[in-house]
Amino acid sequence: MAQSKNDKIKQLLAEQPSGFSLAQSFYKDADIYQTEIDNLFLKHWLYAGHLSQLAKAGDYFTFEFDSESVIVLLTASGDVKAHMNVCRHRGSKICLTSSGNQKSLTCPYHAWSYNLDGELISARNMPEDFEPAENGLHQVKVELLGGLIFVCLHDNPPSLSALRRDLSPCIPLFGLNSMKLAAHKSYVIPANWKLAVENYQECYHCAPSHQEFAKVHAMAKSPQVFKTAKDKFKQANQGNPKFATFDCYFDLAEDGQEGYQYDRNPLLRHAVSGSADGKAVAPLLGAITEYDGGASELMIGPLSYFLIYDDYMVAYRFLPRSIDECVCDVSWFVNKRAIEGKDYQLEQLTWLWDVTTQADKTIIMNNQKGVDSRFYQPGRLSEMETFQQSFLNWYLQALVK
Amino acid sequence: MAQSKNDKIKQLLAEQPSGFSLAQSFYKDADIYQTEIDNLFLKHWLYAGHLSQLAKAGDYFTFEFDSESVIVLLTASGDVKAHMNVCRHRGSKICLTSSGNQKSLTCPYHAWSYNLDGELISARNMPEDFEPAENGLHQVKVELLGGLIFVCLHDNPPSLSALRRDLSPCIPLFGLNSMKLAAHKSYVIPANWKLAVENYQECYHCAPSHQEFAKVHAMAKSPQVFKTAKDKFKQANQGNPKFATFDCYFDLAEDGQEGYQYDRNPLLRHAVSGSADGKAVAPLLGAITEYDGGASELMIGPLSYFLIYDDYMVAYRFLPRSIDECVCDVSWFVNKRAIEGKDYQLEQLTWLWDVTTQADKTIIMNNQKGVDSRFYQPGRLSEMETFQQSFLNWYLQALVK
Amino acid sequence: MAQSKNDKIKQLLAEQPSGFSLAQSFYKDADIYQTEIDNLFLKHWLYAGHLSQLAKAGDYFTFEFDSESVIVLLTASGDVKAHMNVCRHRGSKICLTSSGNQKSLTCPYHAWSYNLDGELISARNMPEDFEPAENGLHQVKVELLGGLIFVCLHDNPPSLSALRRDLSPCIPLFGLNSMKLAAHKSYVIPANWKLAVENYQECYHCAPSHQEFAKVHAMAKSPQVFKTAKDKFKQANQGNPKFATFDCYFDLAEDGQEGYQYDRNPLLRHAVSGSADGKAVAPLLGAITEYDGGASELMIGPLSYFLIYDDYMVAYRFLPRSIDECVCDVSWFVNKRAIEGKDYQLEQLTWLWDVTTQADKTIIMNNQKGVDSRFYQPGRLSEMETFQQSFLNWYLQALVK
Repeated sequence: MAQSKNDKIKQLLAEQPSGFSLAQSFYKDADIYQTEIDNLFLKHWLYAGHLSQLAKAGDYFTFEFDSESVIVLLTASGDVKAHMNVCRHRGSKICLTSSGNQKSLTCPYHAWSYNLDGELISARNMPEDFEPAENGLHQVKVELLGGLIFVCLHDNPPSLSALRRDLSPCIPLFGLNSMKLAAHKSYVIPANWKLAVENYQECYHCAPSHQEFAKVHAMAKSPQVFKTAKDKFKQANQGNPKFATFDCYFDLAEDGQEGYQYDRNPLLRHAVSGSADGKAVAPLLGAITEYDGGASELMIGPLSYFLIYDDYMVAYRFLPRSIDECVCDVSWFVNKRAIEGKDYQLEQLTWLWDVTTQADKTIIMNNQKGVDSRFYQPGRLSEMETFQQSFLNWYLQALVK
Repeated sequence: MAQSKNDKIKQLLAEQPSGFSLAQSFYKDADIYQTEIDNLFLKHWLYAGHLSQLAKAGDYFTFEFDSESVIVLLTASGDVKAHMNVCRHRGSKICLTSSGNQKSLTCPYHAWSYNLDGELISARNMPEDFEPAENGLHQVKVELLGGLIFVCLHDNPPSLSALRRDLSPCIPLFGLNSMKLAAHKSYVIPANWKLAVENYQECYHCAPSHQEFAKVHAMAKSPQVFKTAKDKFKQANQGNPKFATFDCYFDLAEDGQEGYQYDRNPLLRHAVSGSADGKAVAPLLGAITEYDGGASELMIGPLSYFLIYDDYMVAYRFLPRSIDECVCDVSWFVNKRAIEGKDYQLEQLTWLWDVTTQADKTIIMNNQKGVDSRFYQPGRLSEMETFQQSFLNWYLQALVK
Repeated sequence: MAQSKNDKIKQLLAEQPSGFSLAQSFYKDADIYQTEIDNLFLKHWLYAGHLSQLAKAGDYFTFEFDSESVIVLLTASGDVKAHMNVCRHRGSKICLTSSGNQKSLTCPYHAWSYNLDGELISARNMPEDFEPAENGLHQVKVELLGGLIFVCLHDNPPSLSALRRDLSPCIPLFGLNSMKLAAHKSYVIPANWKLAVENYQECYHCAPSHQEFAKVHAMAKSPQVFKTAKDKFKQANQGNPKFATFDCYFDLAEDGQEGYQYDRNPLLRHAVSGSADGKAVAPLLGAITEYDGGASELMIGPLSYFLIYDDYMVAYRFLPRSIDECVCDVSWFVNKRAIEGKDYQLEQLTWLWDVTTQADKTIIMNNQKGVDSRFYQPGRLSEMETFQQSFLNWYLQALVK
């Protein structure tokens, strides 16, 4: 008799050893993947984009993963709202391009038309008992943290109150409200999304795989060397809110609260930014007045990562397209007053994280190939993979929540 | 415990609301798709092609859907016959090209050879007790309506007697026997076949999506405007068999009979054909002696559609390749005495329905994308989607027949 | 209730008629395919390559099928060893190219490093209780027959003792040890692997499909003509070990032993090799001193085939990539002292089996298309398909072993 989906998942969880990489089924089983979409991607806050992408009423961009498409837009009254990109008539996608400006949202199929708030304002030739008020677009929850726009597709999303309490100094400090999107690249990776996320969450591979990164980041050094450098860096800046630490991530998140983490890590001697030579590549961000030789790691929700140098921010987002393909979206942000070509060069700005992400794409593909083997078995994690272990702890709990 | 296939389908049928588009499972569930092939495509009459494609003995063309391939040919005695394109030895496809001429049907693998009637006439080195007479090609039922060739892959196909009784005047009138195939195009659409059929069955989308069509067809107007124009058009031509109406389609078909429908609809003022400017693009068909400003809709079996202007006919056929891909085959027919380049220009002839089908392909793709969302739900149908509703009624019944 | 996998397979076996091609499920059912990998491909000896591909310590090549990748290499002490190409840390593929030279096997992800014997020699920052000795690469069994390298992914492979006993004269005779790989081509075939193997196992299709082959091989003639020619050929060479016969293949293999077969077949009058005109294309192999107008068929394990002319050998290997795609690897071997361009021309050497394999690829594709039809049913095998029948007998038994 076929095992039920729930029983199968429970058995896999019971068999998964702690301190080891995941068993193969977590990367290959269709029921596991479906449960991940339901319990992780549909229930948590995901980074959708930045306010600087919505300059005027009607500006929109779409946010897509698996089979889902969300329209994020600016309403006539200046609010950021998000709607499912699915017509309530026969289900057509409404916005067909990834960004644009629309006075109203008119389905290209039968011209059902919704205002920017998602209310149905026009549907020809409907029966008399049809209720337009009951046929608005499905609403998606939206929250802003500074200019960062987060969406949650669930009606009862986790609270962001703890995150707001702790991270509010970051908003003016890094100017999350006064940034602009300078560049964006999507990397399609033929691998399960978790292999991409796990890759991002540990720097055990930095020294062997990312010489460009390792040249400027202390994190690529051994744990002992990194700890010494970090302790010294933190002590020298004690009391400065830029150097605060919040470990409320994954399994450490407060009950009912979305997870988050903030920490600042030292760069290597002389380096002040993430660039080929460690030199700055753009004007200072927000309220920052001088380079301190560090970079902040800000993580909000389970799958959105922000790396903030003094002169630019990189946003990382990992989203599944299917069980064996994911997309890594990388966005580069600079001070909104910076002028391209004058204050910063796109090629210099994007170089480090483009070359690093391209290398990771290859690494992740080859990881998937090995994980596909019947001879793959969970392997012991190193002392440089503790953050990945936290993710795995949370992931396994979240699967059955 | 896994639900049985039949129980699942019954539950889906019970949950499907009337007057709404179909629930997502009907477009995504593999068991539903398999049942559709078994109960719809294998049990009903499907338009395969036209007699003008078979000029002399041995001429053949293939007719393909899902994993099936049928050889339709003209035998030495002048009969149209159809055989499954599957060798009885080890199953190789026999005719590898979509049309041609063969004296006999010889499998390219081991040279088993069948005559045009499908009888095995040569198989080398077989055991003594092998019976060639039991190893002919699987026969497929064939019926002709005028020159239109229909096939049914089931041994007990629905009767065509009612259809023949009612539609026999159409044959000389439109010259179904005296047409020739002028052009054919296949549009591969990455969507479930029903989304393509539903698209064809309603003109609710014509005004917003097909300005080229809407310019010459009254049907694209509102129901009230269209009804007024049609009533006037019908009254002016009362008693003329060209203006008859038969509504024996889908759930309205007589018991045991294949469904069919015939009706004539007005074009817009001045238009006499389906063309860019409404002017004729080819010589009159069959026994037609003058343009009447109308176009006939003839539908035979659940999935074959013929649109007959006074000067040309378009045949539409929708066939699945897999659960999420279908093909729309469009064939243009003209009077067999018409000479290309002199009496008609291919580009003018095919323009309207090529541009319209290309637009529909895009529409249908985007419909599929939205239907794939977890947030898609059946939506209320309009008063301009009643024919689609009839199809859905029939479809839901046919699934469990 | 869903049928269990084992019950389904048992029922399919019970229903499969003897003397007929396989039922459709054997080519289409995902559980059948999984069972084939487990019971056939993982439990038997497979031809991986030739010693001439491993010239010096650290030389390696990979051997791949389905989701598996094996590294075959020469150790520092001159042994041929094979390891699963899966890092014991987080499962990355280690060797990313199909051949090369490595001093050690270092994973490109986190730099875990293994020596050529597969022992873990370096893993940074691991917890104190981590045992490198327990984290070596998964070992794969290796056996050499002359220079031919066979691997088995199972811990208890079938014995090769009978094969070694009977076939040992072949090694010096054909110089299996003194050959070199002259050319290699991979043919990716969009069909189930069994359709490719069955194609290779019968010459019923040679006359209709392979005129190039049929021009030089008596085997393409009718069974009677071939038997007469073969009897005469064998009698004329009685007692010569080159003309021995061993039928220990498939269901004829001794219990616990890997199957094998050896036989020598006559070419047609005047032909001495498998070439366009039947003339030699390379210097004599091994201990052969003159052309005898024959070609030996050597089969080792269920899926590795060697065709040995007096002047060259072709190795054939069929491996699945997925249920509906397989790869046919063809390797051409010549006397290791032969010099390309002087003693042999690559184009002449490879012509016959390249043109033949390309034709077979098309044949097999079209076989799959027909087998996919709901109207396909097992067909009666001819008297020229007895070897294929032996394979099918063995295959059906092996599925449930």
